[in-house]
Amino acid sequence: MAAEATQKTFDIPKTYKAAVYDKPGTISTRIVELNTPDPGPGDVLVRLTHSGVCHSDMGVMENSWRGLPYPTQPGQIGGHEGVGVVHKLGPGSDRVKVGDRVGIKWIAYACGACPPCLEGRDGVCFNQKISGYYHPGTFQQYALAPANYVTPIPDSLSSEDAAPMLCAGVTTYSALRKSDAKSGQWAVIVGAGGGLGHLATQIGSRGMAMRIIGIDHGSKESLVKECGAEVFLDITKFDDKTLAEEVKKVTGGLGASAVIVCTASNNAYAQALDFLRFGGTLVCVGMPEGDMVPIAKAFPAMMVAMEHNIKGSAVGNQREAIEVLEMAARGVVKTRLRIEKMEKLTEVFQEMSEGKMQGRVVLDLQ
Amino acid sequence: MAAEATQKTFDIPKTYKAAVYDKPGTISTRIVELNTPDPGPGDVLVRLTHSGVCHSDMGVMENSWRGLPYPTQPGQIGGHEGVGVVHKLGPGSDRVKVGDRVGIKWIAYACGACPPCLEGRDGVCFNQKISGYYHPGTFQQYALAPANYVTPIPDSLSSEDAAPMLCAGVTTYSALRKSDAKSGQWAVIVGAGGGLGHLATQIGSRGMAMRIIGIDHGSKESLVKECGAEVFLDITKFDDKTLAEEVKKVTGGLGASAVIVCTASNNAYAQALDFLRFGGTLVCVGMPEGDMVPIAKAFPAMMVAMEHNIKGSAVGNQREAIEVLEMAARGVVKTRLRIEKMEKLTEVFQEMSEGKMQGRVVLDLQ
Amino acid sequence: MAAEATQKTFDIPKTYKAAVYDKPGTISTRIVELNTPDPGPGDVLVRLTHSGVCHSDMGVMENSWRGLPYPTQPGQIGGHEGVGVVHKLGPGSDRVKVGDRVGIKWIAYACGACPPCLEGRDGVCFNQKISGYYHPGTFQQYALAPANYVTPIPDSLSSEDAAPMLCAGVTTYSALRKSDAKSGQWAVIVGAGGGLGHLATQIGSRGMAMRIIGIDHGSKESLVKECGAEVFLDITKFDDKTLAEEVKKVTGGLGASAVIVCTASNNAYAQALDFLRFGGTLVCVGMPEGDMVPIAKAFPAMMVAMEHNIKGSAVGNQREAIEVLEMAARGVVKTRLRIEKMEKLTEVFQEMSEGKMQGRVVLDLQ
Amino acid sequence: MAAEATQKTFDIPKTYKAAVYDKPGTISTRIVELNTPDPGPGDVLVRLTHSGVCHSDMGVMENSWRGLPYPTQPGQIGGHEGVGVVHKLGPGSDRVKVGDRVGIKWIAYACGACPPCLEGRDGVCFNQKISGYYHPGTFQQYALAPANYVTPIPDSLSSEDAAPMLCAGVTTYSALRKSDAKSGQWAVIVGAGGGLGHLATQIGSRGMAMRIIGIDHGSKESLVKECGAEVFLDITKFDDKTLAEEVKKVTGGLGASAVIVCTASNNAYAQALDFLRFGGTLVCVGMPEGDMVPIAKAFPAMMVAMEHNIKGSAVGNQREAIEVLEMAARGVVKTRLRIEKMEKLTEVFQEMSEGKMQGRVVLDLQ
Repeated sequence: MAAEATQKTFDIPKTYKAAVYDKPGTISTRIVELNTPDPGPGDVLVRLTHSGVCHSDMGVMENSWRGLPYPTQPGQIGGHEGVGVVHKLGPGSDRVKVGDRVGIKWIAYACGACPPCLEGRDGVCFNQKISGYYHPGTFQQYALAPANYVTPIPDSLSSEDAAPMLCAGVTTYSALRKSDAKSGQWAVIVGAGGGLGHLATQIGSRGMAMRIIGIDHGSKESLVKECGAEVFLDITKFDDKTLAEEVKKVTGGLGASAVIVCTASNNAYAQALDFLRFGGTLVCVGMPEGDMVPIAKAFPAMMVAMEHNIKGSAVGNQREAIEVLEMAARGVVKTRLRIEKMEKLTEVFQEMSEGKMQGRVVLDLQ
Repeated sequence: MAAEATQKTFDIPKTYKAAVYDKPGTISTRIVELNTPDPGPGDVLVRLTHSGVCHSDMGVMENSWRGLPYPTQPGQIGGHEGVGVVHKLGPGSDRVKVGDRVGIKWIAYACGACPPCLEGRDGVCFNQKISGYYHPGTFQQYALAPANYVTPIPDSLSSEDAAPMLCAGVTTYSALRKSDAKSGQWAVIVGAGGGLGHLATQIGSRGMAMRIIGIDHGSKESLVKECGAEVFLDITKFDDKTLAEEVKKVTGGLGASAVIVCTASNNAYAQALDFLRFGGTLVCVGMPEGDMVPIAKAFPAMMVAMEHNIKGSAVGNQREAIEVLEMAARGVVKTRLRIEKMEKLTEVFQEMSEGKMQGRVVLDLQ
Repeated sequence: MAAEATQKTFDIPKTYKAAVYDKPGTISTRIVELNTPDPGPGDVLVRLTHSGVCHSDMGVMENSWRGLPYPTQPGQIGGHEGVGVVHKLGPGSDRVKVGDRVGIKWIAYACGACPPCLEGRDGVCFNQKISGYYHPGTFQQYALAPANYVTPIPDSLSSEDAAPMLCAGVTTYSALRKSDAKSGQWAVIVGAGGGLGHLATQIGSRGMAMRIIGIDHGSKESLVKECGAEVFLDITKFDDKTLAEEVKKVTGGLGASAVIVCTASNNAYAQALDFLRFGGTLVCVGMPEGDMVPIAKAFPAMMVAMEHNIKGSAVGNQREAIEVLEMAARGVVKTRLRIEKMEKLTEVFQEMSEGKMQGRVVLDLQ
Repeated sequence: MAAEATQKTFDIPKTYKAAVYDKPGTISTRIVELNTPDPGPGDVLVRLTHSGVCHSDMGVMENSWRGLPYPTQPGQIGGHEGVGVVHKLGPGSDRVKVGDRVGIKWIAYACGACPPCLEGRDGVCFNQKISGYYHPGTFQQYALAPANYVTPIPDSLSSEDAAPMLCAGVTTYSALRKSDAKSGQWAVIVGAGGGLGHLATQIGSRGMAMRIIGIDHGSKESLVKECGAEVFLDITKFDDKTLAEEVKKVTGGLGASAVIVCTASNNAYAQALDFLRFGGTLVCVGMPEGDMVPIAKAFPAMMVAMEHNIKGSAVGNQREAIEVLEMAARGVVKTRLRIEKMEKLTEVFQEMSEGKMQGRVVLDLQ
């Protein structure tokens, strides 16, 4: 009786607001009113309060991203950096409690039982559902999510700061871990002032004690330095050859132990291997759009001679998400962001499309 | 007194025979008579009895191998799979004894003190000397070698069987280790019937308990199966697409954990990534000749989506050489070889050049 | 319609037979008739056909095992090596299909979401349910189990051969993996002829290509050799000092890279560190009964001087269970076992208690 | 000609000053005048300017340390944290140049060719020579040292700051690496205010981005906090049980991923396992004096149940020495030290023996 008395309950409305892609292939979203769903076995109903807006969302909406096999359908709810509060449990959903604050990630659902899941590679789950692509995303006020796969949010972290950690944060953190660069070693972040890059710079330097060389356009210098980069290299002041020479010089003649390519540019990949020391690792994070082009200097003979490594890294797993959220809760990493109302989503994508966006936008869904 | 009495001594002649490349750029060797050198500090004098003949030697002799920065000079003594007996110690060379049987490898000398050496990457030593390229090789009866870097040969292993382990053996063993494939997992050996491949097949299957898929021309099927491959795929019976499908089928739908490319062909690299399962690793061993061409399907987006890895692996380190020699001493791996007299070296290269060579040739230098 | 037509369905009886511990603290079991349960959300109903009988079951029944915090209750159904067929799915249990053959392990239920689960340490899951201890075990004809945590059984493996892999097999396999001994290195199996040890010997030698030294009583020599041990040492022919000296001698003077203690004896642990080479690892698997005694020679100064490691290893995780079942399906590892009817369970425990049991018993539950 | 002109040369006196243990077993040192030696093959002559004084030196001098097999002989020159300048090269010693600033460590000479050396475990080298114990140490103005094993000192690091890094620094750094604790995870430093502990605290927190809990007497609180500990626990305010509970509380209920025992106390080891979370690692660094006592709670059953690990860590290898020196050069870690003249060595040991020493003493040998 006492337990029941203290258990939280929430009033759940019959309908709620969601932003849908009404004309996939173009920049166009529309607010619709939907019926609030009831959580089935293993699921919970989450009242979302915030969702980050990611470049990948735009790729899904515009059907411009070659990594996705099928065209997006009209009525798709986008978004995959959602934070909210559990309002109702489905049958058998006892891993979380009503009232818990949780996150929904790009991988909205991972089975936990397929070969990739058993190796901690949730991002490659054979039975995955992707939030905001053929599965309702987080640009809405209510979402269903699996009780055993939502991500707990630390108490001391605000929901708006948590949101971008769920994709941008964990993706860059996972890439830095996969690089095998140790604390004290040099890592180059290509695109260090961008949405992914400015988080990679903070996580790598403050969170993992690596020495960071940030590469970006000169306008990003102060941001990149504030994020913890020991050295900033202005890409406009070097050609390919002199840029690689500068990285070598900065690193005492050896080159960097890791390069994390955070930009979606084939040209960035073309240079990246030249920044590495013997045995170093290039981690692919950014996915160039348009035609697929191989990494330009991945010559077998050179890779053998230098014992170089190239690794692809998807979105990171649940454990890594928890770890990077804890870093954020401790103030080690903080996203540059501004908050916008849900109704502004089309304008936000417009701004993103025109390359004018500074930092990240988090939607307020309340 | 007793100790002195039992210590071995050897008569050392004033001159000895060596095979030199007299016209680098062509297939041409000549036997010359040289003065026997005296070992300096840290060195020992080795009376070589056997040396393997490797495809790389031909690349050095013919100046056809793009991995090497300078043209080979007339008078170069080639060879880098040498086995012999220590006949004399230089000052301060107490890590070996007169009478010890030892090997000389591609990396004839590694400093042990530079960054790669301190990470166990002897093959990338900044101060390396390469046996048979700008440093006298093992196609001769006497060679100087560093006491602390010659490789001890196990008593129960014959010198002719030891010789090919010192380059082909350790190179493939190191590549299999770097692949991170575990025992019980599938590894594809591309070029499984070749000089490197037939060793990789034996080491991977019997020495490391991996499940091996050997790919080569149909004529190599029985050899590859004898070497321990669980499955043989005849490259002439598939196109690129169906070959990848067959690998998937054999591996229960997943693909292989590792692919080791042992052939020096850009085309082999082009296919290799398609054989991999999620998180799998392509190891580059073979170095294609001619113009450098990037690995054809190393698309960033695909590497991210599958979390694939590519690693370059040089010749392996001293520890790995000792380990693979022990495998050979236990009969786990045995090279297909025939023995030829030193005087036949030009004919041997001729045969190699015409693609007629079956197995490996080991020179008898006695 | 066609899909429905081919889907398997099974007649499920209202009641079924189970063996319960009717007087915990003594060796006593009784067959009872129970109502067949209906699977709830996330669960499936498994028609068990076989269950291994493990020494731990006896510890649970007799309340003699100090690792368990609470006394076993009358009516407990024991058993944790169960194999059977999925007969019915609960709501939301779509990871398996009706008709699938699956296994139930010591950890009957792991949450998949707590810190240990997220690191692949299912055996330490904070929300675990233990099969046969405060959760109904596998000495019964029907059991409920979580759809996403039952272990798939390979088609080519018989159910009786699969059963012991689910605890004894995966436990020893996990211990060998945790030892970090590589293929080609020496591992000592202490108690190599026992229930765990004879599997460790096979898995280590044939499955992982380690060189195995089996230690046990002389009567086990032929079994241990058949299981793949390269060397057998008869514990009755050595004292502590000479046994360690013999291990050193066999391993070329160095000592073994790993020691796996499969016996539940404090004395076995006392010796084990002396078998190790520098940097080697002792893996604790067996759990001595009675008062807890520290590992006798775990002196800090000696561990520093030799850089030795000690690791505790629980039952292994789901991935490892799948891997060892695949080894069994390939014939790499096979348990010495005999089959008994469920009704014989008390006699089986009696025999085990008297130390007369040869190999393992698997109950036929059909 | 130009090269010769710029090469440094040094005047080398015929004799120099050294401090010797004249009555081993007591605290007694004496300054003597010795003939300057000439470097043999592979060696260099180092003009030492500074040497740290370590607790181990006192153990050697007093013959009180059980880790050492033989009694120290009269006339032994102690010391193993030496920094100086190369003044002369022996034959074949081309890895360093005259004028280079270098360090001499506890392992004065490692062969680079034995099994431990080939695995990067210099501290266990089978052919090691120990500086200051049966090999002349660094309490002298000139010492011979191997060209390929002296440790290069970064330009920006003063010699007095470099000295303690060569033993205390690298030992704790190596232990932290071996703990496998990742950045962002909790590590407990037992004895965090001591000579080793205050370096472990700095290296772990600032150098490796771990979260550090420092345990020591209350008087050390401000030092430990300045060194970067996030939490300080005053050992005098807890009993064994409440101290473990406090560590659990601080770490969010789990316990720490690593415990580094930097004190030479059996009691510290007795508690340490209780601080660990599942899968955590206790690293042994401090070596208790007196009778050898096993780690009190290393119960096999508990280690299995928690999957705990215990690792012994010796002095660290050359690569780790270089890495920790670089951390020191960047200001990440700095030893609390004071400088004393060589002639004060007996007083320094006296002070150390009475437990009055604050921080470390570095001898000025100029």
